Amino acid sequence: MVELSPGGGITSARGFWAGASYCGIKTEGKDLALVYSEGVCSAAGVFTANKVKAAPVLLTQQRAASGLLQAVVVNSGNANACTGEVGYQDALEMARLAAERTGIAEELVAVCSTGVIGVKLPIEKVRCGIAQIELSRDGGHQAASGIITTDTTIKEAAARVGVGNAVVTVGGMAKGSGMIHPNLATMLAFISTDAALDPACVGHALKLAVDRSFNMITVDGDTSTNDTVLLLANGVAGNQTIVAETPEAELFQAALDVVVVSLAQAVVRDGEGASKFVEVVVRGALSVADARKAARAVAGSNLVKTAIYGSDPNWGRILAAVGYSGAEVNPDVVDIAIGDAWLMVGGIIQPFDRAYASSLLSRPEVAIVVDLHLEGATATAWGCDLTERYVEINAKYTT
Amino acid sequence: MVELSPGGGITSARGFWAGASYCGIKTEGKDLALVYSEGVCSAAGVFTANKVKAAPVLLTQQRAASGLLQAVVVNSGNANACTGEVGYQDALEMARLAAERTGIAEELVAVCSTGVIGVKLPIEKVRCGIAQIELSRDGGHQAASGIITTDTTIKEAAARVGVGNAVVTVGGMAKGSGMIHPNLATMLAFISTDAALDPACVGHALKLAVDRSFNMITVDGDTSTNDTVLLLANGVAGNQTIVAETPEAELFQAALDVVVVSLAQAVVRDGEGASKFVEVVVRGALSVADARKAARAVAGSNLVKTAIYGSDPNWGRILAAVGYSGAEVNPDVVDIAIGDAWLMVGGIIQPFDRAYASSLLSRPEVAIVVDLHLEGATATAWGCDLTERYVEINAKYTT
Repeated sequence: MVELSPGGGITSARGFWAGASYCGIKTEGKDLALVYSEGVCSAAGVFTANKVKAAPVLLTQQRAASGLLQAVVVNSGNANACTGEVGYQDALEMARLAAERTGIAEELVAVCSTGVIGVKLPIEKVRCGIAQIELSRDGGHQAASGIITTDTTIKEAAARVGVGNAVVTVGGMAKGSGMIHPNLATMLAFISTDAALDPACVGHALKLAVDRSFNMITVDGDTSTNDTVLLLANGVAGNQTIVAETPEAELFQAALDVVVVSLAQAVVRDGEGASKFVEVVVRGALSVADARKAARAVAGSNLVKTAIYGSDPNWGRILAAVGYSGAEVNPDVVDIAIGDAWLMVGGIIQPFDRAYASSLLSRPEVAIVVDLHLEGATATAWGCDLTERYVEINAKYTT
Repeated sequence: MVELSPGGGITSARGFWAGASYCGIKTEGKDLALVYSEGVCSAAGVFTANKVKAAPVLLTQQRAASGLLQAVVVNSGNANACTGEVGYQDALEMARLAAERTGIAEELVAVCSTGVIGVKLPIEKVRCGIAQIELSRDGGHQAASGIITTDTTIKEAAARVGVGNAVVTVGGMAKGSGMIHPNLATMLAFISTDAALDPACVGHALKLAVDRSFNMITVDGDTSTNDTVLLLANGVAGNQTIVAETPEAELFQAALDVVVVSLAQAVVRDGEGASKFVEVVVRGALSVADARKAARAVAGSNLVKTAIYGSDPNWGRILAAVGYSGAEVNPDVVDIAIGDAWLMVGGIIQPFDRAYASSLLSRPEVAIVVDLHLEGATATAWGCDLTERYVEINAKYTT
């Protein structure tokens, strides 16, 4: 049984230490965070698909490829993106400073940055800031506050699950609320676990979890240059090493999924200008890939998003988004529901109660279900509505 | 030399007649249009990629596949989409009524509809309306007014070009301004020409023209269930039949492109809530396909669109959109300009005059140039900014 740990975060997993400091990159709040494991971790990462990648992404991608990490250092307020060779040297230096601070090999340090792009990282500030960080076993919340930029909430989660005779914990933190001021923002997520995982299992489990979570959320459809998700497993829980495709791997996956989905949802809930949280479930698709395409298209459609904002039960926009998603669809058999109001059944518009459907859309949490009635594949996507406030935030910020 | 015909439209090409009437589907304005050629035309169509297709699209797709059409009947105010078998019978009946009215075989009539979806077409109104249409040789403008829904402008264009000893004319009309009230709207375009074209040349020329025009515009990224572009060539100009891949075919293509690009731009200029028209040129791409992907991604990015609305010279959002477009890109060699202000050269941010760049963005016509410096392929996309008014229009309409 997977059990959520309310108030938990990246240091909920045993053997992980964290801390943060203010070094003056942002105008206020913590802007440097460090996460450290007592032992070397099996590790894996998932990185932005954008061909324009920030310097720390290029560096961390290389280091994660080794499968071994022991610490992650993150700054907020400056993305160290579009900064050329100098930016890469700054990322290397930032890792070196974190390695010195924690007394580990620099190759075991991952580096992430988020904030302004095209501006040189103030490496002297980073040097001072790293020296000031106090690591502690309950520093997860502080670290989570050090990685945010325009976020209005701190995003953390943790869960426990029994595996064999041991209880393993998965903890995590994330930042992101769209891509914004002044040039880009970023989605970053860091997941820790004290489970002992077979190295081959780490990357596989992370990819599965990300496909179900961060790859199923949409705020504005723009992909940043810095997006990074890292998983570090230190084995401190003392469980028998979990190997892929076993019942134990499934239990661990369930705990990992809960944490990662919870963080992904927190990012969407904090979507720029969003007034409503939207869950789109697509059922009956030919394949999971099709179900995901269709769910993402509905959650990402500007027209669906504005209709939700206006509490308009506009099934036509939902059906059209499914139609252009690329998923196989036979419009003559589709069902569409908003909450428990079935607007379309078997491709035919139902004489639904418009006032009731509209009232379901006026709530802060909106559920849309589309059943394609082709096969049994299912997927869920999460998004938010599109409001005048989104336009205002993104138009009125000056760089 | 291609010469634009100011004030021209679908009846500028010789042998084409058109007219419109009001039959009561819309609350006001013309809502039925008929275009008729004196002789049978070589014809081709391009249709929505949406898997949910309206009944008239299914019918017209079949008929255009024969390569022969002589008339097009269009209603606005009702899309005859998601109307099942009854809808298909209504589309057939609408074609039959137009065939009777013009005295031609019903297989030679194309049918298009645009407006509300999920509501049965009031076929009795259509019957009365078709009977009332007066066709005339200068009825193009009237027909163009009969196909619009939420458009705020009537969209027409025409051009002439000398081919051999003859002058051939291309005329056209279009409607569309995003996908809107009450469920969807649609992009429709009808192109007439008096050129004699080899049947194989018609579809080829239309596809080339659409790829450069309607496939390069974006208002909100949503693809309708009814989008249709038709080309009818009646050969009345008396030119020697134009065969593909000849200098004559290139001349004709140039005239066709001018008309179709002009109509596509008119749709974008009428984009919902748009305050600015945006042209994005991508140069130096590995392939035309890549150049198109990159140009469309920049023109379609919500973040670029809101930055333009806010007159913010946000090169980071432009670069990020290129990066996720799927086009090959090396960020270290990219140039980015807004108007004549080069913000990035060779991947390096320039010390540009922010006030000047912002002033260029505050004009009603905005030009963005991205040079990828890889190979010589080029493409242009057109779009508009994203404003609070777009959200308002799409959120506040109740179905």
